[in-house]
Amino acid sequence: KRLRELGVKIGVMPTGKRNAITDVGGVKVGQTTLIAGDSVRTGATVILPHGGNVFQQKVPAAIELGNGFGKLIGYSQVAELGNLETPIVLTNTLNVSTAAAALVDWTLTQKGNENVRSVNPIVGETNDSYLNDIRGRHVKQTDIIQALQTAVAGNVEEGNVGAGTGTVCFGWKGGIGTSSRKLPAALGGYTVGVLVQTNFGGVLEVAGVPVGVELGKYSFKETLDRSGDGSCMIVVATDAPLDARNLKRLAKRTLLGLGKTGGIMANGSGDYVIAFSTAYTVPHDSNSKFEEQKLLRNDDTSPLFLAVIEATEEAILNSLFMAKTTKGYQGHTVEALPVPKVVDILKKYGKIK
Amino acid sequence: KRLRELGVKIGVMPTGKRNAITDVGGVKVGQTTLIAGDSVRTGATVILPHGGNVFQQKVPAAIELGNGFGKLIGYSQVAELGNLETPIVLTNTLNVSTAAAALVDWTLTQKGNENVRSVNPIVGETNDSYLNDIRGRHVKQTDIIQALQTAVAGNVEEGNVGAGTGTVCFGWKGGIGTSSRKLPAALGGYTVGVLVQTNFGGVLEVAGVPVGVELGKYSFKETLDRSGDGSCMIVVATDAPLDARNLKRLAKRTLLGLGKTGGIMANGSGDYVIAFSTAYTVPHDSNSKFEEQKLLRNDDTSPLFLAVIEATEEAILNSLFMAKTTKGYQGHTVEALPVPKVVDILKKYGKIK
Amino acid sequence: KRLRELGVKIGVMPTGKRNAITDVGGVKVGQTTLIAGDSVRTGATVILPHGGNVFQQKVPAAIELGNGFGKLIGYSQVAELGNLETPIVLTNTLNVSTAAAALVDWTLTQKGNENVRSVNPIVGETNDSYLNDIRGRHVKQTDIIQALQTAVAGNVEEGNVGAGTGTVCFGWKGGIGTSSRKLPAALGGYTVGVLVQTNFGGVLEVAGVPVGVELGKYSFKETLDRSGDGSCMIVVATDAPLDARNLKRLAKRTLLGLGKTGGIMANGSGDYVIAFSTAYTVPHDSNSKFEEQKLLRNDDTSPLFLAVIEATEEAILNSLFMAKTTKGYQGHTVEALPVPKVVDILKKYGKIK
Amino acid sequence: KRLRELGVKIGVMPTGKRNAITDVGGVKVGQTTLIAGDSVRTGATVILPHGGNVFQQKVPAAIELGNGFGKLIGYSQVAELGNLETPIVLTNTLNVSTAAAALVDWTLTQKGNENVRSVNPIVGETNDSYLNDIRGRHVKQTDIIQALQTAVAGNVEEGNVGAGTGTVCFGWKGGIGTSSRKLPAALGGYTVGVLVQTNFGGVLEVAGVPVGVELGKYSFKETLDRSGDGSCMIVVATDAPLDARNLKRLAKRTLLGLGKTGGIMANGSGDYVIAFSTAYTVPHDSNSKFEEQKLLRNDDTSPLFLAVIEATEEAILNSLFMAKTTKGYQGHTVEALPVPKVVDILKKYGKIK
Repeated sequence: KRLRELGVKIGVMPTGKRNAITDVGGVKVGQTTLIAGDSVRTGATVILPHGGNVFQQKVPAAIELGNGFGKLIGYSQVAELGNLETPIVLTNTLNVSTAAAALVDWTLTQKGNENVRSVNPIVGETNDSYLNDIRGRHVKQTDIIQALQTAVAGNVEEGNVGAGTGTVCFGWKGGIGTSSRKLPAALGGYTVGVLVQTNFGGVLEVAGVPVGVELGKYSFKETLDRSGDGSCMIVVATDAPLDARNLKRLAKRTLLGLGKTGGIMANGSGDYVIAFSTAYTVPHDSNSKFEEQKLLRNDDTSPLFLAVIEATEEAILNSLFMAKTTKGYQGHTVEALPVPKVVDILKKYGKIK
Repeated sequence: KRLRELGVKIGVMPTGKRNAITDVGGVKVGQTTLIAGDSVRTGATVILPHGGNVFQQKVPAAIELGNGFGKLIGYSQVAELGNLETPIVLTNTLNVSTAAAALVDWTLTQKGNENVRSVNPIVGETNDSYLNDIRGRHVKQTDIIQALQTAVAGNVEEGNVGAGTGTVCFGWKGGIGTSSRKLPAALGGYTVGVLVQTNFGGVLEVAGVPVGVELGKYSFKETLDRSGDGSCMIVVATDAPLDARNLKRLAKRTLLGLGKTGGIMANGSGDYVIAFSTAYTVPHDSNSKFEEQKLLRNDDTSPLFLAVIEATEEAILNSLFMAKTTKGYQGHTVEALPVPKVVDILKKYGKIK
Repeated sequence: KRLRELGVKIGVMPTGKRNAITDVGGVKVGQTTLIAGDSVRTGATVILPHGGNVFQQKVPAAIELGNGFGKLIGYSQVAELGNLETPIVLTNTLNVSTAAAALVDWTLTQKGNENVRSVNPIVGETNDSYLNDIRGRHVKQTDIIQALQTAVAGNVEEGNVGAGTGTVCFGWKGGIGTSSRKLPAALGGYTVGVLVQTNFGGVLEVAGVPVGVELGKYSFKETLDRSGDGSCMIVVATDAPLDARNLKRLAKRTLLGLGKTGGIMANGSGDYVIAFSTAYTVPHDSNSKFEEQKLLRNDDTSPLFLAVIEATEEAILNSLFMAKTTKGYQGHTVEALPVPKVVDILKKYGKIK
Repeated sequence: KRLRELGVKIGVMPTGKRNAITDVGGVKVGQTTLIAGDSVRTGATVILPHGGNVFQQKVPAAIELGNGFGKLIGYSQVAELGNLETPIVLTNTLNVSTAAAALVDWTLTQKGNENVRSVNPIVGETNDSYLNDIRGRHVKQTDIIQALQTAVAGNVEEGNVGAGTGTVCFGWKGGIGTSSRKLPAALGGYTVGVLVQTNFGGVLEVAGVPVGVELGKYSFKETLDRSGDGSCMIVVATDAPLDARNLKRLAKRTLLGLGKTGGIMANGSGDYVIAFSTAYTVPHDSNSKFEEQKLLRNDDTSPLFLAVIEATEEAILNSLFMAKTTKGYQGHTVEALPVPKVVDILKKYGKIK
């Protein structure tokens, strides 16, 4: 069950209809899950900002480097030009080049892109090598293409799925999670959606309750192991009319949501945030020398900041609550979060009645 | 009382002896509090990285821009050269140039600095204009000098003092707060200390408990007011041997601690983190062309990251728990956090037995 | 004489009418020159983006840190919000806080700003301590105010004037210089203006001719002296409709113009670029939640980049050609560039017929 | 012939023995040139910082984003950790993922890397689509591996070779170029080497002489075409003991050298600088918690800055002077720089006697 189905609310803002990144109109998510034999536990998750040709109709975007110990592809062009021109793919660390090649191929072969000779693919990753035979690089270009082709706008599967198939979070099975917030009309009425791929450590808190400590499992409990390591990929979508500068600010706030779950952005963690707006597009070619934009003023961005913090926290927790115990590479097993015990702890701390 | 005296622990790491930034050997804090008539509620807080001539013996340092809507002075030289050459002064928004002039004057007149012709003063601020007649610019250079001259290495006063005299946090009286963590020997045994000047908004949480919601006071509760605005200055000291790059990473993690108190880095917030190490100094003049440094490896920084998150969260909470109700400019009154009520809430949520 | 009056053209783009930053409509420049006794050789130069209330009608802006070993005030807020809210002041290193205090005072007391309680002054500097008794901090707030009040839109005085009164460049007397470019209509017809305060070293080239080598005066000729040190402040104005992101890109290109004069951004150099657009303003208060902007597309920015490189190179050279031999602090004398000799060199290299 | 063989010196610093990046001890360069049929004009150039296992013995490094409109892979981890863990590969825009996959594969299969499960490949590119059938993605992983395996420490081939096979610079055939500087002993005696892949536009200058204007071929001569577009990849090696912070500063200075050739970092240009030091290595695994480093002081970096500016300018010019007229994709022909005419122009301007 998702966290909210257990009766736990995160924050003070209402969610969107599905409490998912797909609450932002036009956004689609596709996932390919690869489970095979004893050792393949990996996959890919793709996020499409809209249903059209993303290269021809780019979207304003920004990438925040929370902790850059990761292999994200596509940073500099987004920083320079302020937009995205491909969907976003999440996968495992050693398959980012596979995914990038697939994104390029997919873009080159789309209708209308016959003359495209330069593409900036966006690929993020976390390292699933504890459960997955990562050196085998089992994600193939066809797996990425399939995720792109089957992406839909409805509910998003969470837990052990897609790029989250083999990930580990706070010592428990992590994976894909999502959440959203819809601002009240008085605050603009915008929707902010978040999707995460969780694979990091720290001292788990659920809605402020010290679940990691209560369960006796947290980073640096006794020694300097690497239990804090891992990574978190965070994708943010919004229909608020923000340009790249304010999208970067929005992206940065997600790190506070990560902090609220007990994440610490450990040295070994690749923590990246990719944020885009669906409020307008930037055409690749134009008869005009100008872009005309109606952008939200700086002064009116703060409610979005609160919303994205809440949605990030809840998306991370959903990834944990929806994941299942998994056995994989070299016989390693990672347990799912023991939800009944966690429910008891949440009751003890007054979070569930 | 400080939060810990109420029986509430933040995090899993032990504190230093005083649970203060001054637990880092050599660090001194000085404060000038200005309360006069109906309208003057301001002051200055200074942090000295060591007791010697800071210009001649600079300390490695970094500044993280959490949200740059503020007037911090001194950023670029620290970013370029990786060190600090003056103490750090915190004061109010419209007195930063006063404080900078005082720091320059103080540096020029120190013994050994007779030929110094360039100084990079470090001054941070928050805006205390609700309680203080900020346009009157009541902080004078002599007030800054006094804080520098009276700085000591012992306990640090918290609450309505120094640069925190007139600040407001989560709708309650904020101010100066401090905390520290001392890593277990197995994790390196280093100390990390944090001092904050709190003047920001959001949805207050105390040790994960939704105190802001329970008290019915939080940002954007009903409308888009500016209640989330304000700022937070965070100063971090450590005796771990880090260079500027890893100090910047350490500084960035404090924002997660700020997030755990419910802060959102609102648009109007100037959130800055200044971090320095006392493990070695960088001489202004040297007979050698080289600096020889023994630096902590990247792989061993993560426990420091957890420590600084915890210390930041606790320092912010201490600033609230130690502050007193204050009446000031134009008859405005800001209530202290109603500690007995908060204690009840913390009991309800199982945080105090 | 200015360089162009000697028959030397820089680059391929036409200049504006005055070949000055004031070719950008609305931009005003004011200067206070302080020459007194044996030791005072300093001053201030101010640039106003428009004739109105800059705080109430902010201008889009960006600051590039070429080499951050300097004391520029105001960086972070410009980076965060993308605009300027005061004029820009240039002065000497130890008077930046004086200038900032004056800018704050001037802003607070302007009509319409009665309730302003937060101001982000923008102050740059170079170090004129070889010719000026810099430790005396001879620039007073009244000097800054005077420069602001007497600023005009016409021709700009160059050489030993304002903030350039005591500066040294490539071993010769530097100072204030300016230049502009006006794009052909087919390239948009926009104007780009540059004003510089030159105080740096390297290996002087004039229109590509190795003047420094021919004159036998350049950095590191024999030893590791500090002859490459010093700083360059660069202010860029344009009427092209750029937002902060593209203004930052424009600002960055000026460094290539600095490089073409033989500048090297030495370790000790504080090289900063402040760029703003006059094409639209950002109101401090607004009834709307939105800004509506018609911005130049990324694809059409390149001619502006070429223009700003040329204007920067020429502005720096103008500062040298217009400066006069100066005697100052402790009897130090800095010679003006020996123009007749330079003309001979330029003839030898085919640059002047 | 290389520029210097024509009797033209760039700058005032002496070159290294080969005037090539391989003058930095241990650095190797390998190139695969792909010329096939009418349409394949591409390849790869690799730079190895040392002859050992680069993953196990990383080198301090930094990447500067001159203009980020490009597809460089590997930025964020270098920025975060301050080191490189693979060789650097340069290739064409649509083959970066191929190159990254090859680098990962090569790293995973090296002796000693049997347990490596995370690799940060560094790949840069420029767009050779005018002469090369770039959509065909003709560079294969085996081509990259071959370049890695055949890399040598001696002379470096320049012009139409490796990643420069199909590139265009200032409207003429560009390609690979290299140069170096060796500081006099009094300035430290360090070597700085630069290798470039040139594919950009602007207004060509050779040793300060306006060759582009004299030849009547330069960007924006008449209209807003895209002639300024394209990219420049710059790789810098040095044996000076610099950490990542000072390597970043060194990297940034190369842009001034690019400017001196007439480059403008046009909107469409992906201009990246990758700098590393061979003075020490950072072991992947260590028994110690510390790195002990003897680093050059900030104050002593300026001569390196001058050196790298000169070497970059000369490397770019070498790429032009060494390139040959090339016919390729769709019958497009790009002429080599007409060296005899250029020599005449250089004579006219007194640069060649």
